[in-house]
Amino acid sequence: MQTHFLDLNQLNDDEIMELIRLAIQYRDGKLVQLKRPVYFANMFYENSTRTHTSFEMAERKLGITPINIDPKNSSVQKGETLSDTVKTLQAIGTDGVVIRHKTTGWYEPLIDDERIHTSLVNAGDGSGQHPSQSLLDLLTIYDEFKKFKGLKIAIVGDLLHSRVARSNAEILKRLGAKLYFAGPDEWYPSDFDNFGEFTNIDTIVGKVDVMMMLRVQLERLNEDARESFTAVEYANIFGLTEERGSKMKKKAIIMHPAPVNRNIEIADSLVEAPQSRIFRQMQNGVFARMAILTSILKSKDLIAEDEYEDIN
Amino acid sequence: MQTHFLDLNQLNDDEIMELIRLAIQYRDGKLVQLKRPVYFANMFYENSTRTHTSFEMAERKLGITPINIDPKNSSVQKGETLSDTVKTLQAIGTDGVVIRHKTTGWYEPLIDDERIHTSLVNAGDGSGQHPSQSLLDLLTIYDEFKKFKGLKIAIVGDLLHSRVARSNAEILKRLGAKLYFAGPDEWYPSDFDNFGEFTNIDTIVGKVDVMMMLRVQLERLNEDARESFTAVEYANIFGLTEERGSKMKKKAIIMHPAPVNRNIEIADSLVEAPQSRIFRQMQNGVFARMAILTSILKSKDLIAEDEYEDIN
Amino acid sequence: MQTHFLDLNQLNDDEIMELIRLAIQYRDGKLVQLKRPVYFANMFYENSTRTHTSFEMAERKLGITPINIDPKNSSVQKGETLSDTVKTLQAIGTDGVVIRHKTTGWYEPLIDDERIHTSLVNAGDGSGQHPSQSLLDLLTIYDEFKKFKGLKIAIVGDLLHSRVARSNAEILKRLGAKLYFAGPDEWYPSDFDNFGEFTNIDTIVGKVDVMMMLRVQLERLNEDARESFTAVEYANIFGLTEERGSKMKKKAIIMHPAPVNRNIEIADSLVEAPQSRIFRQMQNGVFARMAILTSILKSKDLIAEDEYEDIN
Repeated sequence: MQTHFLDLNQLNDDEIMELIRLAIQYRDGKLVQLKRPVYFANMFYENSTRTHTSFEMAERKLGITPINIDPKNSSVQKGETLSDTVKTLQAIGTDGVVIRHKTTGWYEPLIDDERIHTSLVNAGDGSGQHPSQSLLDLLTIYDEFKKFKGLKIAIVGDLLHSRVARSNAEILKRLGAKLYFAGPDEWYPSDFDNFGEFTNIDTIVGKVDVMMMLRVQLERLNEDARESFTAVEYANIFGLTEERGSKMKKKAIIMHPAPVNRNIEIADSLVEAPQSRIFRQMQNGVFARMAILTSILKSKDLIAEDEYEDIN
Repeated sequence: MQTHFLDLNQLNDDEIMELIRLAIQYRDGKLVQLKRPVYFANMFYENSTRTHTSFEMAERKLGITPINIDPKNSSVQKGETLSDTVKTLQAIGTDGVVIRHKTTGWYEPLIDDERIHTSLVNAGDGSGQHPSQSLLDLLTIYDEFKKFKGLKIAIVGDLLHSRVARSNAEILKRLGAKLYFAGPDEWYPSDFDNFGEFTNIDTIVGKVDVMMMLRVQLERLNEDARESFTAVEYANIFGLTEERGSKMKKKAIIMHPAPVNRNIEIADSLVEAPQSRIFRQMQNGVFARMAILTSILKSKDLIAEDEYEDIN
Repeated sequence: MQTHFLDLNQLNDDEIMELIRLAIQYRDGKLVQLKRPVYFANMFYENSTRTHTSFEMAERKLGITPINIDPKNSSVQKGETLSDTVKTLQAIGTDGVVIRHKTTGWYEPLIDDERIHTSLVNAGDGSGQHPSQSLLDLLTIYDEFKKFKGLKIAIVGDLLHSRVARSNAEILKRLGAKLYFAGPDEWYPSDFDNFGEFTNIDTIVGKVDVMMMLRVQLERLNEDARESFTAVEYANIFGLTEERGSKMKKKAIIMHPAPVNRNIEIADSLVEAPQSRIFRQMQNGVFARMAILTSILKSKDLIAEDEYEDIN
């Protein structure tokens, strides 16, 4: 039971499996009752419709009242520290605060401050973690294979700048998957050798159970960027083209955190192909976040005992 | 029963009259119960407080939970297609999406995509339609005259750039009204000859039942615009001045989609004069939109059978 | 019973005390039932997360549905007057409108317009009033001393540009407090002589019951500003340093409207020191605003008779 939800690596295997099972229960129609009105603030200092809307939907489905705060209209502009902003939201009566912030580990100065008792939820921190995305990825893989141990999983693309690549690599290795990495050399962080094997997409595309493609930030492919390839070259050398897709194992799946740059990371025709779980990932995102928020609600004793099942 | 609501011209006369009657029932206090929680996203790619707030109020009055999404903070900025954005909102669990977009017919590529089953509501598309505005205009006229057949209606002003002028001209002609148009020659689309007669405001102001004035986009009257008249000249030649207002038939009404440029399209003193229905139009907007959303809810079987009347 | 809430000075002493008592009841768990769904629009033309979020929370705790409108996306950009915007929100069905606007007395042209019957709540007008902030300050002082008469209160800092300084000075003097002012000469409005004595912080810090520090707008301390002091000099000459804090009376309290510029107006270590009521003020803000909104709901007969107490 977590007061905060900041980094999936702080959970042990059982705790992660419990969240996955809880998410599946919510997807199957589980409902909960809150003991009193509960308020969560959502503050996204970096734009993210997808994650923001997914958290808001998860909150609403649990009966939590979301308070959306646009940091562009906020006191942050007046030089207030994140700590003071969080304490303000706490004073106003929020039970939790979902934050995405460009500072890696934005939450670290806050969790040691005993005056903060509102719950902190990390919706992405700088080049750090994106734990709710990791959990929905795990849920999507588990849906398919009912296990992690022994699965062969490729993570392909911009490993260096991707929050979710690092989270997923650490967790999946811990859970027993065998990992392969591919993508441009200049985007490979050498410490990923601890989690798996750096190879190339053509070597592994026919062998793995999961092709987890990462988003390319297009501005990195501009002419004035320092990269040694264009968007077309990226697609040809590192992307999941139709031809490569045709070499995948029959039961292998395609994943991507979205939004997809169609025909760059993945061929347009593969995005919604039968092997693709990309929109399934988004759907799972709401249920994964419901499980995360539930662990916080439980830690605060805010869920009524007599839970009941949905009739829908 | 409509899964989408995109263009009023796709409805037959009976369907339009049913929406008008339903809107009147809501205004009289009708309430409905939803079978389960229903979520609609509101995405306005072009600013429109009035339409956005009106849709949000209609949703809330029906018990629908609105999810407001500001496209300026969205993945659209990351190059995502509208189709992928809509599919994302669908995956996250929205039952419908209300969209205003600068692209005429933004919905056309989407309605043929069988993977999209979330309902699409057109809140204004480029130089195309503004069907919810048309419906509220029809409701406001019907309130007054209990019929359309034989009514004489003038539509005056910037016919070329007005979404609602075209929607209304097509529908009102079909419903049996006799239409007159006035305004600058350069803002008269010649195909409007199919719907009515192009004349000048002084010829018709004393004859018609409805003076429907259109909004002028002020930037078109700037010095560096190519128009041949200034704001003051526009008011004198094409506007509903006090003097012209005094020549209106006793039971004739003034309409305008708002926001009004007071003393340009309409004399300040006429905006809230007894003949004006401008704020009545805004009030009707909420009920017209409740009727529109109800047609979608019905098509998805989301309304409980035992509807009951409001006691207020 | 107020239809609008615009300026605390329009209330008599009994009415103010009734609001304070009502706020305390809400803090103690009082709940109310509304007779029908009630909608309030929140329009903040100037950024203010704190006040906006506090009003939204107050609305939600009372069961009012907030409709948040971002004026940056609004028809205001199309040149609509504030009066027409308010009448639009009224037509759409809002029972009240909470507005912050840069125009001092923005509400004056509206309250004489008999067509406006939606309730207006002033969340800060130009260099005018900030009555909900004043009320929460009064509540915070009353919590501590159970009276105003005879209290010695210092208001220190930028008296010239602070909305709340003027509101508080007028009200606190009327309620019987003895006021002292300190801060830069150039920021002292000479008519404050009517409310209390202009002196310096070192003379009064050991004598008063309340040190009410005002926010400095940092841009006034820029090199190109005309002020005769830097941020560091401001802290040394006018700020509540640790040394000055140590001279305060044992039961005296520190207040600040927040956000605080730590180490400018107040030493970092004092912001959350035992004497500080700064976060308590924010907490009280929600309950003070609940009391304000309740006075409006009562004036419109929107509260059900059989109120009941919270069991939490």
